[in-house]
Amino acid sequence: LSDRRRPEHRSGLSIRTDRRSVKDALDWIDAHVSPLAAETVPVAGAAGRVLAAPAFAMVDVPAFDRAAVDGIALRAEETLGASPYNPLSFGFAAADRALPVSGAAMVSVAARLPGNADAVVPVDHVTLARAGVCEIIEPVVSGSFVEGAGSHAARGMALLPAGRRLLPHDVGLLVLGGVTRVPVVRRPTVRVLVIAGVADGPLLGALIDRDSGGLVDLRPVERDRAALCDALAAPAADVVLVVSVGNGAEDCAVGALSGAGELAIRGVALDPGEAAAIGRTDTGIPVFLLPGAPAACLWAYEFFAGRAIRRLAGHNPALPFRARAMRTSRKIVSAIGMTEICPVRCIGDRAMPTASFAERGLMAASGADGFVVVPESSEGFAEGAVVTVYLYDTHEPPPGDTDIPS
Amino acid sequence: LSDRRRPEHRSGLSIRTDRRSVKDALDWIDAHVSPLAAETVPVAGAAGRVLAAPAFAMVDVPAFDRAAVDGIALRAEETLGASPYNPLSFGFAAADRALPVSGAAMVSVAARLPGNADAVVPVDHVTLARAGVCEIIEPVVSGSFVEGAGSHAARGMALLPAGRRLLPHDVGLLVLGGVTRVPVVRRPTVRVLVIAGVADGPLLGALIDRDSGGLVDLRPVERDRAALCDALAAPAADVVLVVSVGNGAEDCAVGALSGAGELAIRGVALDPGEAAAIGRTDTGIPVFLLPGAPAACLWAYEFFAGRAIRRLAGHNPALPFRARAMRTSRKIVSAIGMTEICPVRCIGDRAMPTASFAERGLMAASGADGFVVVPESSEGFAEGAVVTVYLYDTHEPPPGDTDIPS
Repeated sequence: LSDRRRPEHRSGLSIRTDRRSVKDALDWIDAHVSPLAAETVPVAGAAGRVLAAPAFAMVDVPAFDRAAVDGIALRAEETLGASPYNPLSFGFAAADRALPVSGAAMVSVAARLPGNADAVVPVDHVTLARAGVCEIIEPVVSGSFVEGAGSHAARGMALLPAGRRLLPHDVGLLVLGGVTRVPVVRRPTVRVLVIAGVADGPLLGALIDRDSGGLVDLRPVERDRAALCDALAAPAADVVLVVSVGNGAEDCAVGALSGAGELAIRGVALDPGEAAAIGRTDTGIPVFLLPGAPAACLWAYEFFAGRAIRRLAGHNPALPFRARAMRTSRKIVSAIGMTEICPVRCIGDRAMPTASFAERGLMAASGADGFVVVPESSEGFAEGAVVTVYLYDTHEPPPGDTDIPS
Repeated sequence: LSDRRRPEHRSGLSIRTDRRSVKDALDWIDAHVSPLAAETVPVAGAAGRVLAAPAFAMVDVPAFDRAAVDGIALRAEETLGASPYNPLSFGFAAADRALPVSGAAMVSVAARLPGNADAVVPVDHVTLARAGVCEIIEPVVSGSFVEGAGSHAARGMALLPAGRRLLPHDVGLLVLGGVTRVPVVRRPTVRVLVIAGVADGPLLGALIDRDSGGLVDLRPVERDRAALCDALAAPAADVVLVVSVGNGAEDCAVGALSGAGELAIRGVALDPGEAAAIGRTDTGIPVFLLPGAPAACLWAYEFFAGRAIRRLAGHNPALPFRARAMRTSRKIVSAIGMTEICPVRCIGDRAMPTASFAERGLMAASGADGFVVVPESSEGFAEGAVVTVYLYDTHEPPPGDTDIPS
């Protein structure tokens, strides 16, 4: 039920409520929010960050020709003619200097080849003839069991593309490539202003952290339009969230945003989360007015504020959950004209609708394995319909997950 | 190729190499590593932590009867008989004190009901009759559009089970339930000793961090058995990793572990990662000897050291990647007797084997969308076979993922 049907006598404000579709709200965010500029950070701490530019190898990887197995390093040309009937002998030589003629050096996997060596014979293809001498009975070709310098990545080659969210093995690769610092998208700073006595601060703090935002300020503010205008006019952050609930606090927040910049969207056809409003300050900082009721606050964050933070951070802006096609085990009913979030439990490969956010508040999320988004245009889904389930990353192995096969 | 086939003259040690199956290694870890004891932390910073005990509501959620919609709060019994032909009038009263007879108070969604009120009439079912008086034309029942105190969760009720990895909305729920501090599994501390000149520190640091371990010490050590024995005997951490490569460093590490405690497993039928060894100190601290070649280090970590850290942290010990059944777009060939990691690219719903770790080192991981584990007992998979693909969490939306439906 939207504010636009509120009795006129109650609103001291002239702002018309004009509830918009979720798509309109997402389009506004995508049109007004872009990734932040880059900052340069040490590679060692860069896991999880998003590359702002491609990373190139500064050195060959590997840096030198090295053994791919434990074995003996030798000159391939000296193995010509070796056979069981004609074993060829090699004298053991030091691995840290150039090989003499008919010399061979013991090398461990990943060890640098000695000078003159161009092949490695795996240790189980080598026979000890007598102390200090070994024999081989098969010829090998140059490069055999050798990882050549630059064979994984040659100097100057692109190791990782711009936009890559660095995984642990990417960090390892950059180190090998001689890269010590990388340009990454700056983490967005977020300021949260809480009007009245709502307890959504820790919820929002955890959500912002998950989305790689940095919560720089979380503070209560008076339900006072002028004070809120001032706070919005000097945001000192990349995004501002304002949480408000009840007794005119939303009107106050909406009025302040109109005064301090632009109120672009007031009210969205999202349940829970309908009272969300979106705009920006005069300096272009996006501002999200979030309803204070916890479930509504959660979903207004996930769809709108979180999307802006994810975009600023250079992340995938979509809902940050794994999506999986599943069949419903019961009918899901929804009102046309509202995008509704329906919590589900996953039982085998079926999604079962469970207690709603209206009935259970945040308990509905904590008791669910994930949720289905019922689009505005839909009345819901029949039993057995295929739906996209967004799965929470709970401790339990997700449906379809398995342990290591043996 | 295993160390057991190394020419005898080279090993100054009496330890027999006895390559074991991946399953044996996992079983050893599971038998010897359990979640750490609990510590109590503030709820506000507890997202991502694992509950060590169930969390119970300390207060009713909601704490009081509150409005489920914007509307007017009134006594349901006073609406009896209302109809379009018999509109009933209510005088507006203050929302912050008990309602007088035939009084009604404007309430916003989530606002506390005034005393005596037991129902809310949504604002669009209310007509303004004249200043200070409204009319309704339908009777309502007690509890209508009211979220009753304790209706989401009653005081004393279990909010979340032990073992739950706290999601952002769980943090919000605990705050609502009046929980300020929670017992969570302590984060395991990890010490990394690096023998010789390998560059795996940042790789391991990022992996340990991903698995909720705390890297408390990363230091180079001499390839000296006595020094390493001393370091292992006083680990000052919950897990110790020793990284070594080449020229006898592994032998030195294996010897030190034998001296300082128990060498349980030396060499595992895992490719890459075959040279991994596992054991524990005299005081029971698990120790993992990781090969220094980066791809081998990565996989010995993912399968063994990481599993121990995930178990200690109370997390799901399985490989921390989403698993998805896909068909291969080309044959995957693997040697019987080795568990092999085969990187793949996902093209549509097909998994295409791509450059191997042997060919490309860590580039094979960074160039892949995920990997297939080919079990020891398998020669690989035919083209079109259904395989379990473990997917990397790269920036790109994963296959099957979608944006918000509209």
